[in-house]
Amino acid sequence: MKKYISEFVGTFALIFCGTGAMTINEVTNGSIGHVGVAITWGLIVMAMIYAFGEISGAHFNPAVSISFAYAKKFSWKEVPKYILAQTLGALAASLLLFFLFPESEFYGVTIPSTDAMRAFVLELLLTFFLMVTIINVSTGSKEVGVMAGIAIGGVVLLEAMFAGPITKASMNPARSIAPALVSGHLEHLWLYILAPIIGALLAVATCKLVKDDNCCDEGC
Amino acid sequence: MKKYISEFVGTFALIFCGTGAMTINEVTNGSIGHVGVAITWGLIVMAMIYAFGEISGAHFNPAVSISFAYAKKFSWKEVPKYILAQTLGALAASLLLFFLFPESEFYGVTIPSTDAMRAFVLELLLTFFLMVTIINVSTGSKEVGVMAGIAIGGVVLLEAMFAGPITKASMNPARSIAPALVSGHLEHLWLYILAPIIGALLAVATCKLVKDDNCCDEGC
Amino acid sequence: MKKYISEFVGTFALIFCGTGAMTINEVTNGSIGHVGVAITWGLIVMAMIYAFGEISGAHFNPAVSISFAYAKKFSWKEVPKYILAQTLGALAASLLLFFLFPESEFYGVTIPSTDAMRAFVLELLLTFFLMVTIINVSTGSKEVGVMAGIAIGGVVLLEAMFAGPITKASMNPARSIAPALVSGHLEHLWLYILAPIIGALLAVATCKLVKDDNCCDEGC
Amino acid sequence: MKKYISEFVGTFALIFCGTGAMTINEVTNGSIGHVGVAITWGLIVMAMIYAFGEISGAHFNPAVSISFAYAKKFSWKEVPKYILAQTLGALAASLLLFFLFPESEFYGVTIPSTDAMRAFVLELLLTFFLMVTIINVSTGSKEVGVMAGIAIGGVVLLEAMFAGPITKASMNPARSIAPALVSGHLEHLWLYILAPIIGALLAVATCKLVKDDNCCDEGC
Repeated sequence: MKKYISEFVGTFALIFCGTGAMTINEVTNGSIGHVGVAITWGLIVMAMIYAFGEISGAHFNPAVSISFAYAKKFSWKEVPKYILAQTLGALAASLLLFFLFPESEFYGVTIPSTDAMRAFVLELLLTFFLMVTIINVSTGSKEVGVMAGIAIGGVVLLEAMFAGPITKASMNPARSIAPALVSGHLEHLWLYILAPIIGALLAVATCKLVKDDNCCDEGC
Repeated sequence: MKKYISEFVGTFALIFCGTGAMTINEVTNGSIGHVGVAITWGLIVMAMIYAFGEISGAHFNPAVSISFAYAKKFSWKEVPKYILAQTLGALAASLLLFFLFPESEFYGVTIPSTDAMRAFVLELLLTFFLMVTIINVSTGSKEVGVMAGIAIGGVVLLEAMFAGPITKASMNPARSIAPALVSGHLEHLWLYILAPIIGALLAVATCKLVKDDNCCDEGC
Repeated sequence: MKKYISEFVGTFALIFCGTGAMTINEVTNGSIGHVGVAITWGLIVMAMIYAFGEISGAHFNPAVSISFAYAKKFSWKEVPKYILAQTLGALAASLLLFFLFPESEFYGVTIPSTDAMRAFVLELLLTFFLMVTIINVSTGSKEVGVMAGIAIGGVVLLEAMFAGPITKASMNPARSIAPALVSGHLEHLWLYILAPIIGALLAVATCKLVKDDNCCDEGC
Repeated sequence: MKKYISEFVGTFALIFCGTGAMTINEVTNGSIGHVGVAITWGLIVMAMIYAFGEISGAHFNPAVSISFAYAKKFSWKEVPKYILAQTLGALAASLLLFFLFPESEFYGVTIPSTDAMRAFVLELLLTFFLMVTIINVSTGSKEVGVMAGIAIGGVVLLEAMFAGPITKASMNPARSIAPALVSGHLEHLWLYILAPIIGALLAVATCKLVKDDNCCDEGC
């Protein structure tokens, strides 16, 4: 149970702060700015990894849980429970933002500013880079493992920074589902669910190419 | 005595730099900017944790001292002395800013831009996320403990970034009391004292759910 | 083979995110901003060092590979293979950006805003500072080695920040070659190949002055 | 000799990048921005500490060398040699910027925007906070020592951020002397030499209050 509470609270914090930054930026006419929103995303991911990494592994992201299971570093039986905890945490955050900022229209929902095909490719690549970092850092030496929060939070920050203007840089189905439901903007949700999962699985496959069996405990 | 001097100097540095950034931004017509103010807050917290963490525990915040006592990780007898040192440090900083920048009106005082109820909920949540990070990092492994300054400073930075436009992101009664007294803007002070303390206590309660007895040394 | 795949993927990520930030900033009329572009460059370097440092050494830069070989810390036989992997990774990134953003003219190509002589001196110095950090951190104690990603990513971030407006702060022949080929802007490419290599070799020579034989395993 | 070369190269890098950011910002009409200049200062200090900390102690600042000697953690005999190396490094940087950017007027010189008395108090406090962090981190546990570059670079970044608009946040006599000589703006130089030294000495005195004999090896 402790693991699911950790995933719930961590994902809640992620979505509340991250989409909260986008919501407050929207309702205050850009007082935070694009750079400020990207910094918020990266740092809350970093902080939650240090807070909950030793309890639940700090996934906070269905694509991460699925690809860790694919790599045989995480039980498939746990996947639906983790995804449920993550999605409920994200939904709680979006509902609380709905209550606090009823004047918002978007609540940080992810809508691409380009066509669906390019947005799909970009989200796939963003999650690929994210999961390449996660899988390599988490299978590296203990010293590098201590840096996990900084490295992974750094990837989220930089991807929100450079790809935010095109796709909002979701990389996380739970992060996209919650504000889509609350804001009613469901139109591109499918790509934000599918692309991150494919990108993360590809990252695990790449890890196999550079690290032998270490990425996948019994071969994947 | 060493602990109280550490809390005094650390809180003095925090409030001088943090509210100093807001004061200088005010009197120079926004030369620092919102992003710059948030970065200042986060980094001074990080630096003071590395400077004084091994002497006093680097609380610098009455809500943190009270909730560490509630978690039985800190003596209740020490709480009033810590709070006194923190408040005096904050006051010294605000008075020095008053002397250096007499043309300022606000001295970084915390006034919400929304109604009191929403500001209360937001400050409670901000301090909840802060204390969730503090309690989990400080009860984690030694390796994660080294990252405490980065994780906790990161939370302060990101919360000042995204919630600053709504409540100024105090999370700290001492931080709100000092500029309120010096600027004479006492009108919302009650919520900046109450909400952080409740949020921090809730974080300790949550920690119990995910970490057994580790959060509270003899049960809380 | 694992090392070359690591260099390919790492350099691909570097160039895709770094010049991607410049490309997206170009086609969205500055939505990312100069500060955002610099932060993107620094953080992707940091993340890729933590992801691949223990596999390939995380060079991602022909100037770094050549000067490590000059310092006798890397085999000369490996140098052409590393440079090939780095250049192919960079090219793949630039071609993908060409496919995703056909409306761009520059794709993050490096063109100086000053005359060639000063741009040459500046790029030489930038790579000198970068390689001084790399060689000293990688020959220091194990504790400092853990900080390599942060220190080296930090140098890339700050140099992109302060020298970006003059030379775009390449410091890396592969980083300059790929967008030059894709955008057709080959006019200053020679200086972005030559200056970084000379600057990095000078850094190794300086290291010899401060660290005896440690910089060069058998004297250089 | 190795120590002096380290101090020369490190201070050269600091002043070239830091005042270079200010110079390039000046000649390109603010393309870097205040936030970008502050980030440049903080990160070059961080990187040079990791590069040279284990060789020379990474002072790069006469006020730091003097106060380490006052704390009996550094030989008084070394102080003039360190100050010479630091000042020559800073001068080389300023002269190189003069050669690269002849159109600049200021070369990052420190001129207060307020009266001398307040600028003096502010510079004294800035260096006090900087040296409080340096002396406590360098006398703390080994784990905290690893974080020295991040903590100290963070202080330089945040102080340049919040106090830059008032005094340019020098905290370092060598950093102020070099651009003053090259630009000919010597009018407030005295305060940028005196205030940092007094502030740093006060920090050592405070350290004595919180850490017994640890700050001063044989009492100070």
